[in-house]
Amino acid sequence: MRIARFSDGEVPKYAVVDGPELAVLKGHPLVDGYESNGERVAIKEVKLLSPTLPSKIVCIGMNYRAHAMEIGQDVPDEPLMFFKPNTAVIGPGDHVQLPHQSNQVELEIELAVVIGKLTKNVSVADAAEHIWGYTVANDVTARDLQFSDLQWARSKGFDTFCPVGPWIETEFDPDDQVIESRVNGEVRQKASISDMNFKPLELVSYVSENVTLLPGDVIVTGSPAGISKIDSGDVVECEIEGVGTLINPVT
Amino acid sequence: MRIARFSDGEVPKYAVVDGPELAVLKGHPLVDGYESNGERVAIKEVKLLSPTLPSKIVCIGMNYRAHAMEIGQDVPDEPLMFFKPNTAVIGPGDHVQLPHQSNQVELEIELAVVIGKLTKNVSVADAAEHIWGYTVANDVTARDLQFSDLQWARSKGFDTFCPVGPWIETEFDPDDQVIESRVNGEVRQKASISDMNFKPLELVSYVSENVTLLPGDVIVTGSPAGISKIDSGDVVECEIEGVGTLINPVT
Repeated sequence: MRIARFSDGEVPKYAVVDGPELAVLKGHPLVDGYESNGERVAIKEVKLLSPTLPSKIVCIGMNYRAHAMEIGQDVPDEPLMFFKPNTAVIGPGDHVQLPHQSNQVELEIELAVVIGKLTKNVSVADAAEHIWGYTVANDVTARDLQFSDLQWARSKGFDTFCPVGPWIETEFDPDDQVIESRVNGEVRQKASISDMNFKPLELVSYVSENVTLLPGDVIVTGSPAGISKIDSGDVVECEIEGVGTLINPVT
Repeated sequence: MRIARFSDGEVPKYAVVDGPELAVLKGHPLVDGYESNGERVAIKEVKLLSPTLPSKIVCIGMNYRAHAMEIGQDVPDEPLMFFKPNTAVIGPGDHVQLPHQSNQVELEIELAVVIGKLTKNVSVADAAEHIWGYTVANDVTARDLQFSDLQWARSKGFDTFCPVGPWIETEFDPDDQVIESRVNGEVRQKASISDMNFKPLELVSYVSENVTLLPGDVIVTGSPAGISKIDSGDVVECEIEGVGTLINPVT
């Protein structure tokens, strides 16, 4: 099942994706379940929003060996955690805005785990039942500031630096699906989810031993190799096989 | 004026501190103003809570020269930002819980700026009108993990690692007030607010150029020298002259 959040000009609503249409839900699916309110709308007639409003975004650094190598780092022995602020979140179609502070903003496609319930000290075996589903995220990064700042907070925390969407796929089972980013139609990153060093269930368990995760929180699980600069006017597509394609123009 | 948030066993409420008593407010002061509901309660009869529920906590690293030196770092040319997750926030009297992952948890007293309204690209000259007030924070840090992890997120992000309180002082004007932490009554850190490298108004302006701050968000402005280990059974007092004293036991 694919869960989208959208706006038709009034209050944001949740819906189940049904082909080119949305079957609108009565309330928030994590609170009120999946009961339809009877309304149906065409996806192309509404504005899709980020499918979750996370209280926090936990990012995992250097979780694909080839990406760690290309930025001159070793793959860490334990998952490397950092945070993006939720003010960075934008939805499908929203513009990534290049900040004047950076001359080198790059995309990083990542598989995003969306948490479904309070998650603290959960084992790998129990992690799956804490996951609401999966979506696509772009861990947009000001690469020049990432290298010049001692911490990665600012370089990855600018407003609009965390596109999320287009929806949450609740039945995705991470295996060897293709993860691929494109800029203006040209492939920039292409890898298999199976190249991840720490797998999603391991990451949920690990993160939950260090911070409490709340419903709607997001863990972005690291980017494959092939990071590359984006410029004003570009259109970035982030596609994960079996989840969907997140498209964002750059301004 | 000092603004506290408290629980009397029912829903949390805001109040104005009046000596040993609280004059209870009708609603949230940033939304509903400072109108009293007529109720008064003794502070010692209620549980004070963190006076703000920040959507994000922006920390400034190494903002006192003597502290940067003691952890082997230079004072940065620009403010060094990092984030703590809001799941780390606890209130006055709540216990800091030592995580099993660390053998060296340390306290860091910091002056905390509490934001009063949406703050983006604000100049230093305009920063003051975006500040709701000041409170005290303890940027609790697992020092061993801070040094072993590439990023400071995990070492500073554990649940209970961000005590905030006891209240928000709306009339505090940062100058040369004393900032002092004690463990079991023994002084561990003592400095003057004037030793800060980047001043609070500069920090509000700087941070707002990099991330949008929301009402209730917190900027913690760095810790003076004298960081020191805390152990189970300790009682930590963080006092800033003119603001108040934040007391937390350690478990």
